[in-house]
Amino acid sequence: MNFEKMNETKVFRDPINGYVKVDYKIIYDLICSKEFQRLKRIHQLGGTFQVFPTAEHSRFSHSIGAYEIARRIINEVPTIKNSLNEEEQLTLLIAALLHDVGHGPFSHAFEMINPIHHEEYTISIIKDNSEINSLLKNIDVDLPSKVISVIKKEHPQRLLNQLISSQVDADRMDYLLRDSYFTGATYGYFDVERVLRVIRAHEGQIVFKESGIPALENFMLGRYHMYKQVYHHSSSLSYEVILLKLFERFFELVENNYVFKNDYKYILPLKNKSKLSNQEIYDLDESVINFYAKLLAEEEDKILREFADRFTNRKLFAFYEVKTKEEVEYYHQKVKSLGYDDRYYFFSDRPKQIVYKKYGKNDLSNVMILTKDNKVVEISKISPVVKSLSSDRVGDDSDYIVLIPKEIK
Amino acid sequence: MNFEKMNETKVFRDPINGYVKVDYKIIYDLICSKEFQRLKRIHQLGGTFQVFPTAEHSRFSHSIGAYEIARRIINEVPTIKNSLNEEEQLTLLIAALLHDVGHGPFSHAFEMINPIHHEEYTISIIKDNSEINSLLKNIDVDLPSKVISVIKKEHPQRLLNQLISSQVDADRMDYLLRDSYFTGATYGYFDVERVLRVIRAHEGQIVFKESGIPALENFMLGRYHMYKQVYHHSSSLSYEVILLKLFERFFELVENNYVFKNDYKYILPLKNKSKLSNQEIYDLDESVINFYAKLLAEEEDKILREFADRFTNRKLFAFYEVKTKEEVEYYHQKVKSLGYDDRYYFFSDRPKQIVYKKYGKNDLSNVMILTKDNKVVEISKISPVVKSLSSDRVGDDSDYIVLIPKEIK
Amino acid sequence: MNFEKMNETKVFRDPINGYVKVDYKIIYDLICSKEFQRLKRIHQLGGTFQVFPTAEHSRFSHSIGAYEIARRIINEVPTIKNSLNEEEQLTLLIAALLHDVGHGPFSHAFEMINPIHHEEYTISIIKDNSEINSLLKNIDVDLPSKVISVIKKEHPQRLLNQLISSQVDADRMDYLLRDSYFTGATYGYFDVERVLRVIRAHEGQIVFKESGIPALENFMLGRYHMYKQVYHHSSSLSYEVILLKLFERFFELVENNYVFKNDYKYILPLKNKSKLSNQEIYDLDESVINFYAKLLAEEEDKILREFADRFTNRKLFAFYEVKTKEEVEYYHQKVKSLGYDDRYYFFSDRPKQIVYKKYGKNDLSNVMILTKDNKVVEISKISPVVKSLSSDRVGDDSDYIVLIPKEIK
Amino acid sequence: MNFEKMNETKVFRDPINGYVKVDYKIIYDLICSKEFQRLKRIHQLGGTFQVFPTAEHSRFSHSIGAYEIARRIINEVPTIKNSLNEEEQLTLLIAALLHDVGHGPFSHAFEMINPIHHEEYTISIIKDNSEINSLLKNIDVDLPSKVISVIKKEHPQRLLNQLISSQVDADRMDYLLRDSYFTGATYGYFDVERVLRVIRAHEGQIVFKESGIPALENFMLGRYHMYKQVYHHSSSLSYEVILLKLFERFFELVENNYVFKNDYKYILPLKNKSKLSNQEIYDLDESVINFYAKLLAEEEDKILREFADRFTNRKLFAFYEVKTKEEVEYYHQKVKSLGYDDRYYFFSDRPKQIVYKKYGKNDLSNVMILTKDNKVVEISKISPVVKSLSSDRVGDDSDYIVLIPKEIK
Repeated sequence: MNFEKMNETKVFRDPINGYVKVDYKIIYDLICSKEFQRLKRIHQLGGTFQVFPTAEHSRFSHSIGAYEIARRIINEVPTIKNSLNEEEQLTLLIAALLHDVGHGPFSHAFEMINPIHHEEYTISIIKDNSEINSLLKNIDVDLPSKVISVIKKEHPQRLLNQLISSQVDADRMDYLLRDSYFTGATYGYFDVERVLRVIRAHEGQIVFKESGIPALENFMLGRYHMYKQVYHHSSSLSYEVILLKLFERFFELVENNYVFKNDYKYILPLKNKSKLSNQEIYDLDESVINFYAKLLAEEEDKILREFADRFTNRKLFAFYEVKTKEEVEYYHQKVKSLGYDDRYYFFSDRPKQIVYKKYGKNDLSNVMILTKDNKVVEISKISPVVKSLSSDRVGDDSDYIVLIPKEIK
Repeated sequence: MNFEKMNETKVFRDPINGYVKVDYKIIYDLICSKEFQRLKRIHQLGGTFQVFPTAEHSRFSHSIGAYEIARRIINEVPTIKNSLNEEEQLTLLIAALLHDVGHGPFSHAFEMINPIHHEEYTISIIKDNSEINSLLKNIDVDLPSKVISVIKKEHPQRLLNQLISSQVDADRMDYLLRDSYFTGATYGYFDVERVLRVIRAHEGQIVFKESGIPALENFMLGRYHMYKQVYHHSSSLSYEVILLKLFERFFELVENNYVFKNDYKYILPLKNKSKLSNQEIYDLDESVINFYAKLLAEEEDKILREFADRFTNRKLFAFYEVKTKEEVEYYHQKVKSLGYDDRYYFFSDRPKQIVYKKYGKNDLSNVMILTKDNKVVEISKISPVVKSLSSDRVGDDSDYIVLIPKEIK
Repeated sequence: MNFEKMNETKVFRDPINGYVKVDYKIIYDLICSKEFQRLKRIHQLGGTFQVFPTAEHSRFSHSIGAYEIARRIINEVPTIKNSLNEEEQLTLLIAALLHDVGHGPFSHAFEMINPIHHEEYTISIIKDNSEINSLLKNIDVDLPSKVISVIKKEHPQRLLNQLISSQVDADRMDYLLRDSYFTGATYGYFDVERVLRVIRAHEGQIVFKESGIPALENFMLGRYHMYKQVYHHSSSLSYEVILLKLFERFFELVENNYVFKNDYKYILPLKNKSKLSNQEIYDLDESVINFYAKLLAEEEDKILREFADRFTNRKLFAFYEVKTKEEVEYYHQKVKSLGYDDRYYFFSDRPKQIVYKKYGKNDLSNVMILTKDNKVVEISKISPVVKSLSSDRVGDDSDYIVLIPKEIK
Repeated sequence: MNFEKMNETKVFRDPINGYVKVDYKIIYDLICSKEFQRLKRIHQLGGTFQVFPTAEHSRFSHSIGAYEIARRIINEVPTIKNSLNEEEQLTLLIAALLHDVGHGPFSHAFEMINPIHHEEYTISIIKDNSEINSLLKNIDVDLPSKVISVIKKEHPQRLLNQLISSQVDADRMDYLLRDSYFTGATYGYFDVERVLRVIRAHEGQIVFKESGIPALENFMLGRYHMYKQVYHHSSSLSYEVILLKLFERFFELVENNYVFKNDYKYILPLKNKSKLSNQEIYDLDESVINFYAKLLAEEEDKILREFADRFTNRKLFAFYEVKTKEEVEYYHQKVKSLGYDDRYYFFSDRPKQIVYKKYGKNDLSNVMILTKDNKVVEISKISPVVKSLSSDRVGDDSDYIVLIPKEIK
């Protein structure tokens, strides 16, 4: 592997991490690649900016933030640094940087339109046929597969998998702080300095010293609050559902050989709901969606143009939270009875709210505590707070959500 | 005038102002108008996000922020509230909200491509032929012209003009705090609570109590630093110049009847560098520019596709700061001698850096201090710090900037 | 009642509340009284500054902070303002201001030496024979007893009692933020603006809107963490125990008619462990304790001078956390076997850690939530997080603490 | 020299620096010395807490803060670390820690009563006859004199002198941030992280990279504001003058062989206004002053007891700012004409306000900038802001201050 460094540390200002610091040339080159630059045209929080107006930050700034957290963990935690050779360290940094490179426009919202997990695209982009892949192969022909193994949680060095994909990892630490900062919802604050002081490698796995439990409890409660108050906000969902319905109408018209006024070449491949090629996913960013929405509003089809207008000009559906399936069905029938096409003008869901999952005994996602008397224990066993947030206890009775046009009362 | 209120105060979360609070129905309706929603698709700081990655905030969030500052001034400063009748108050709020509605994509950068001041577009959009105009006329047929008179600093109630367009106004207060927050460059912080405690109406003009001078000095120094460190950053300029050159090449090809593969209907009107219609300016947002850049990179013309690629994938020019015209010319000749078309591959400028202007005696832009012994004095007369920042003293010897491709050494 | 206002609002800078604002003349006069000024000579957190060096804030600043929170609640929450007449409002402000005026030196630590609850002294000082009492009687002869009834939670206007002494009241809101700020332990942060937006009076009691649950959960978790990490820190306890032992030795010598070199008139009344007069409690502040410790170090008695030196120069005992009574006894015997007088050189305790108490059905300390469907429910019934912190679940298995000299291994 | 390290890094929580970290055993031992512990009983800002109620922080927390800044400079700035051998590094840390150990009660206010500069006491305490001196000699017999040479700015390694006593040094960086934080006056904020990134050793002196000028300008303006708004606040001065007058009356009575009821052994040595012994200065802390003020209020002499009461219960003089000597004299005569003893009931002064001094050409106090073209220039030559704050320009026309009893109108 080629560990070439920059002549001088390259820094990016970042309100979350102070600075993002880049020493390895490969990291800087990856940031400059076209697939990575594309992340600037994708909102980190999908449609959330339609509810929290300042949630305008991109996957790009989150991705370099996650990298920076990983970099700090390596540099500031001796037990971790000493457990990893330089190749493993660099693999970790690259995995942190690239873990979200496969996201589509509006991030998670895109997975409703194209039901492929963004991780699959991340893997494809790293695997072949991309600037990123060339850059990686250039310094080590096996590097793409090494990075992919971290993203799949299959790297032989278990620490790498945990630092990228456990309940308290570089990705989550960055996004919790970042999403709080940019939404202005202060729920996600936690003491990241403290977490960096208590994390360590211990007998081949990531653990946290017992004295760090308060900071971890804040982290967990912060995530819980962010999910309830921000990530699952019904109005963001409403915006995203309108996007979904716009596409569904478009697909139906394509299916029926409808003659469009304009050309929509970049979204046609989405029609089959199957996996896209690297070039096709690259070509999809939010400028394409926003631009096409403008063109779609010029077409003749009434439903199509209405949803395009709703999307561009934020004319959202109203949402209702109801307790039973019967109430959901009540709204459904009402929509139909008023002559609306319920395939488009009705949506319902039952969102899940799980914050901390206690996985099976040896699952590497578990948060493990190193107690004062040197035992390693899963956190929910000793923190009543985390226990109260864990999967078997929260969200059992979550409500149904119904979205319908505001004009229907 | 119709002063209808919302049933319930509508709030938007905002990290700068805590919450933006909307009571008047007209304010909410204006925010929902398509011209105002378009501001979500325009970066507040043009190309700055290419240097400060988190400067991704939009004109939309700044505009509701400027409104909120104006709202707080009215509500928290009794001398101002008591000097304005309700019509004037609402006119002020609307002017604060709409003052930037005419901005083009990438804000000030657009004025290089279409050399019309954004204020002219703001006025046109308010004046006629827009959703905003209809909403305003609906509650008072003269409201558009009243709002315009504030934006032109010609409203008979002089306080309104000052609160929107003086050296320390609602607009500047919001953008200084907001741009600092979102870039992560902490330079622009000042104690806004303190400024709100010392601002007042006094004999028909806006003044600040002498005890507020430290906060005002911080404000002025903050602006000075933001200009030097952020707003005039050479790499943002480089990005914006690449956009400019892309358009210049495009215009030249159009002029020469070049046959394009794709349709570029939304930017064709820019060719003449004259003022656009309201519909034409509305149709221009950043999704259009970004999308067209993608298409332009598919055209045959080498210069066009190269600049399109540079723009989309952030392949910036290098910049040099030089002291003399001779040095500028040295770079110019070098570019030419290497066979580059210097109309595209060379750019130079001499940026100005003025922070506080002392205008003529009665100009309403001056910042006036109400001293302890009840006199009204222009601030630079009693603050050596502000004096040191004022126009006759700073920036005389500013350097020239030269932008050329990085491969030229 | 005399509701005289100040000519001009008097403000105190305060990092927690921005400003503390005083409009009523009586409030300002009370702050100037000698009993209230004495609070500047008493640490808010007793011996905590020996562990968190910046925990140097006084009862004075906390008391005006609690007043300010109460003032904001009245002014910013219409349902509460409208439920209280001006007399009740002023009574509330005074009770918030004076609630801690009876604290002895080192706050709670003093209650180990003089086992009278500080509230009893607060009541005595308000009741008679003090500047505070005269000031109160001066504007309304019944005001002392009205204020006392709030402090005793017996005021007929139930809202007042709740705002001063429930689980989420003006006192706790201020100290949680303040103690976090001044210790630098960030655990106690919560969104006080949000709490002020969701608190209200509803059918004669204080409730919080359901949408405020995240802020309340942060509040509760913050308190829980502050107790564990700061308030119950073993080294503060060690410092306070050394003070206790110093006094116990002093009392024993007095009892035995020991002849001292110096005069200790201000602490002699403590000998009987009974309630002091107002003058006696007034005379006790930390300057007295610190000064006498200096003098006591000059006496001949070895134990006395050693504890005086330990106290002044922070020569703390070591602490051990142990699981069983047997282990406690092990240390006890060790101390004795080495020839130390175990009445002084040994201390053990089992601290309790309760954060949220669910009181009986109608107890006014309960935190009540006003749900979306307009029901009033005790918070731990709907918040699994608060439930996890409530009294029947936390701290059952708390460890014993043992304090002994460091030289004993 | 003995460079023994602690077994484990000892940390102190600190809101300004996050943590203060101690690795060298000698540093920890010095902190535990009785002379250093005494600093906990001395307010960092003298009487400022009587105006800004939360300015209750001590010289102790500032001193460990200045040490921490010095420690960070060594550890985070390679050019500085590499210019100093370990002995010089440790000498620097010790000098930063101990630079204020000679302060008397109420810090600078004490120098009005005992007109010896606190630095002289600092030097005496380090030089001999103290726990501190023994600890230092224990690891190197010449260490006391090495530390003293830094404090006197005479150390042969010029960098050490500059890091402790220039216009931007470890001491000033800490106190500016700390005093802002604890007063709640936000004026003194500056970007310390940035300053640490631009400071360096260059040709044997401390310089700052040109790109750090904005941060330095904020630092300078921050100091300027703190002096005007906080350090020179007339009400703190009023409190300190009352203390001064209390002592002057006490000295006069002693001189006249007045028979006191109580013993005042610790302040008697102050009578001659000459330099105290180390034991005498050690014995003076604020508990002594506060306690004696309580006793002095019990004496018969009317002036003495009145000033003692004023001091303890914050009954301050009123202050007037006047422009001319004649106005000062007007107040003076008024006091006399009303029968007050003007030696006690009248005080006037003309405070100076100098922020940045440009010293002689080679003076090490100057702030030197390393420009982009690698020249070293004194900052006020290139920063108009700093120039505007420098000694020849500010404070020429400062007002006189007059303090007299409030009852005189």
